[in-house]
Amino acid sequence: MAANLIKNKHEVTGFDLSEQALSALKNTGGETAATALDACKGAEVVITMLPSGRHVAQVLNPKFIQNLSNGTLIIESSTIDATTARSVASIAKQNGCLMLDAPVSGGTAGAQNGTLTFIVGGSDKALEKAKPYLECMGKNIFHAGESGSGQVAKICNNMLLSILMLGTSEALNLGVAHGLDPKVLSEIMQKSSGRNWALELYNPYPGVMENVPASREYKGGFAVDLMTKDLGLAQEASLDAQVATPMGSIARNLYRMWSVAGNGKLDFSSIIQFLNKK
Amino acid sequence: MAANLIKNKHEVTGFDLSEQALSALKNTGGETAATALDACKGAEVVITMLPSGRHVAQVLNPKFIQNLSNGTLIIESSTIDATTARSVASIAKQNGCLMLDAPVSGGTAGAQNGTLTFIVGGSDKALEKAKPYLECMGKNIFHAGESGSGQVAKICNNMLLSILMLGTSEALNLGVAHGLDPKVLSEIMQKSSGRNWALELYNPYPGVMENVPASREYKGGFAVDLMTKDLGLAQEASLDAQVATPMGSIARNLYRMWSVAGNGKLDFSSIIQFLNKK
Amino acid sequence: MAANLIKNKHEVTGFDLSEQALSALKNTGGETAATALDACKGAEVVITMLPSGRHVAQVLNPKFIQNLSNGTLIIESSTIDATTARSVASIAKQNGCLMLDAPVSGGTAGAQNGTLTFIVGGSDKALEKAKPYLECMGKNIFHAGESGSGQVAKICNNMLLSILMLGTSEALNLGVAHGLDPKVLSEIMQKSSGRNWALELYNPYPGVMENVPASREYKGGFAVDLMTKDLGLAQEASLDAQVATPMGSIARNLYRMWSVAGNGKLDFSSIIQFLNKK
Amino acid sequence: MAANLIKNKHEVTGFDLSEQALSALKNTGGETAATALDACKGAEVVITMLPSGRHVAQVLNPKFIQNLSNGTLIIESSTIDATTARSVASIAKQNGCLMLDAPVSGGTAGAQNGTLTFIVGGSDKALEKAKPYLECMGKNIFHAGESGSGQVAKICNNMLLSILMLGTSEALNLGVAHGLDPKVLSEIMQKSSGRNWALELYNPYPGVMENVPASREYKGGFAVDLMTKDLGLAQEASLDAQVATPMGSIARNLYRMWSVAGNGKLDFSSIIQFLNKK
Repeated sequence: MAANLIKNKHEVTGFDLSEQALSALKNTGGETAATALDACKGAEVVITMLPSGRHVAQVLNPKFIQNLSNGTLIIESSTIDATTARSVASIAKQNGCLMLDAPVSGGTAGAQNGTLTFIVGGSDKALEKAKPYLECMGKNIFHAGESGSGQVAKICNNMLLSILMLGTSEALNLGVAHGLDPKVLSEIMQKSSGRNWALELYNPYPGVMENVPASREYKGGFAVDLMTKDLGLAQEASLDAQVATPMGSIARNLYRMWSVAGNGKLDFSSIIQFLNKK
Repeated sequence: MAANLIKNKHEVTGFDLSEQALSALKNTGGETAATALDACKGAEVVITMLPSGRHVAQVLNPKFIQNLSNGTLIIESSTIDATTARSVASIAKQNGCLMLDAPVSGGTAGAQNGTLTFIVGGSDKALEKAKPYLECMGKNIFHAGESGSGQVAKICNNMLLSILMLGTSEALNLGVAHGLDPKVLSEIMQKSSGRNWALELYNPYPGVMENVPASREYKGGFAVDLMTKDLGLAQEASLDAQVATPMGSIARNLYRMWSVAGNGKLDFSSIIQFLNKK
Repeated sequence: MAANLIKNKHEVTGFDLSEQALSALKNTGGETAATALDACKGAEVVITMLPSGRHVAQVLNPKFIQNLSNGTLIIESSTIDATTARSVASIAKQNGCLMLDAPVSGGTAGAQNGTLTFIVGGSDKALEKAKPYLECMGKNIFHAGESGSGQVAKICNNMLLSILMLGTSEALNLGVAHGLDPKVLSEIMQKSSGRNWALELYNPYPGVMENVPASREYKGGFAVDLMTKDLGLAQEASLDAQVATPMGSIARNLYRMWSVAGNGKLDFSSIIQFLNKK
Repeated sequence: MAANLIKNKHEVTGFDLSEQALSALKNTGGETAATALDACKGAEVVITMLPSGRHVAQVLNPKFIQNLSNGTLIIESSTIDATTARSVASIAKQNGCLMLDAPVSGGTAGAQNGTLTFIVGGSDKALEKAKPYLECMGKNIFHAGESGSGQVAKICNNMLLSILMLGTSEALNLGVAHGLDPKVLSEIMQKSSGRNWALELYNPYPGVMENVPASREYKGGFAVDLMTKDLGLAQEASLDAQVATPMGSIARNLYRMWSVAGNGKLDFSSIIQFLNKK
């Protein structure tokens, strides 16, 4: 992401706990700093990408934000809970900063090729200011609503995706167990009311589709552990808003169990094997 | 369906327990018979459409089939269990008849307009012979495999459809509970990996899409009770083949409970209300 | 079971496909026959124990039953679907025989020690006649109702048992993950409203209780595959009567998946490992 | 609870937002204070009972605790999340106070009759000091472990209880749908491996047991909304510790949906009606 900003003539100063990440940044023409605050002081735009809401709250703490220049735009691109995203945005606002929650999808390939999707929560004004930067790194930018909405929209989408994947897997397993060809069944459902993203672009049954994780032993792709994390965030959001999400709950449990069984690094379409591995 | 055959110059003789159905047939230029056997004796093609596997086994019993002419093509269009479909096909074969299981989708509108979808199980030869007839009544004809496969493919698709609908409903409810606009969230997910038939053509959230059941209080469409029946067939098929279908199981239970709560006649997208009705 | 009848001065003639079973019978003083019919002709009481409903229907077919003496009492002790049990009972009645469905629990130890539990469906008259025989083999005899009710009561109980086991496992795992001692937590719940058979006699957490499968790596006991079979029968019964059993459905899927993962021969309390194995 | 302390010669000063609660306290011989802090200043023992973790964190905030006398024992009797319980306990310790999390069960009847059950988390020393007070109000006192463990044990127990209730309900519904007498089936399962607290003391099927909510239209007892709250806490704890609890997840969703359908005030055994109401 930094490389794509630099390629577009932006000056980037970065900080990371990993030495490797820092030297990669240097190699693409960026500057590095000794601390997160050093990297961000005086910047027009601050972009963060961290593992969890806890880390975001620690880094973007009130004192840190007070040290930013007035009017700084914070683009928080981690996938975290909406509560933390809203709380940091509110502190930013109190300190004269703009903030967007802008979680991404598209994986490491999308990050490298500048084809990420950003799902953004925050004001129109902040988004307007962010667009030139986001467009260096991504292809699709969706505005989901006010602060926190980017996070909510992303976990809603990923919860739905896990359900599509499980449903598609169950339907294919059931058909194959009754003697159907998974390719023929996939085509029929894709032309019928079973049509969905997983059938169209990411068929979980080995041998049906080329160039998908199912055809390379579920290597690469979107890891089971990452899906499990997002499904956990979706369940937190469900509990928080007292919403019933029975399919999302079961999906979270199944992905967690599949990870516990030792498959956390496989692509999330590998869940088809959990249901009926021979 | 009979009317569309007659319109295409086929001679149709029908039988039904309902007087109304028989007089409707007469009005469109068909003949009626006093019994099912009278209607079918000497026919080149026999088409049946019955409520359940039990009824199919009763009507297409060995004695009945023995009374058909050699080489008669039976097109069995009910949605039933694959076991019964295979068993009747085997009796038909023993008696020199051809048989296809050819369950339909498309509803009463599809039947009237000749735009049904047929998902067919049986031999290539039988399907070749059936095509001129099926094409009078339907627009899409899918060949799923040998006898029984039409039934299996249909229930796989409908099980998957119910899961798409539940998943889409949960994602929309969750987003709205966190303040998102259901229309905006639907668009984002439809352009992302949450894309599916329900989001695209049959959005369950009231007010998002025109001309869908959600915008007319879930009237019309595909009834909860019919979905519940298909989900029951999917569970029978899962038990029969010892396949795990956790999402399909939960879907069957939720649809059954929604029906028990008095909503069996509503469209199946009404399930969104079961999850978080105010 | 035969040995316990012989010990109580009954004459037993048996038939089995396994040579080993036949020679075991001879060794305990029984007679063997060349066919099932030879074993049963002229007998006052016929006792069957077979793997599934399909086998029961094949062995106790109408012709076989017609060859039994008038007034013969059939004690059918397999665990099978209620539909088959009722249908065989009805044929027995038409031919002047009495029939009980009398599935057992208590495992091989119960069979050897004569401490089985019989859950019986059928008439009071048949049960009265059966008691002297059942009491040789079992300790508890429950009368569940008319024909088929023994099977229904047994699968209801076993479905409930699987749910107790899963719920107990989840509660213990959750407590331990938060630092509680599984023994202390087990005692608290056993004295509270979480009390149940699994906590009391069959604790699934290793090390909490001696002399249970959890303390010998889940060897022995009631196999996952047998529980999976019973849960399948419970789901068939649910579909048949159009009853919603969401917990029973999930239990059946989880046990099936645990079996598919290679644990079918372990005791059913091993499911605790499926949820959170380290 | 206050009345039972007063009856045992303790001096009680209380605070509540409800005027009614305050005058009830006066009527039983207690003192009232104008604020929570006024009530607690100088007290040897502080007992709190609040609706949620958020309220507990607000009342027992660091400043509040600094105002308590050194060595004060805080008995926090709300049912809340373990994280908040642990965090407040840690602040208490830093300020020289002792703290127990001591959630109760037993309902309003138990509170009035002094027969509550306390499930306690905290040090042996704190518990030793608390016992004379707890014994005025309760009959059973369980020590679950260190701070937070009382909360964890309680939600583990209540999650398990909800699963027992759902499983028992499903088994009874299934049996009745197949013609069994719910009383006979209850007795059989209670003497078999289906035995559990719900069958023994709280049968959900109307007419099987006297003096339970099922025999008075599910009035009184433990409300669906309270069970839903506890199941939400159990799910939070599961997410927090990354534990899979599929049955607990489904239970939480079903109870939430049953509440949404308008049954939040009914006893929690009413869930049997959700599954198969006629």
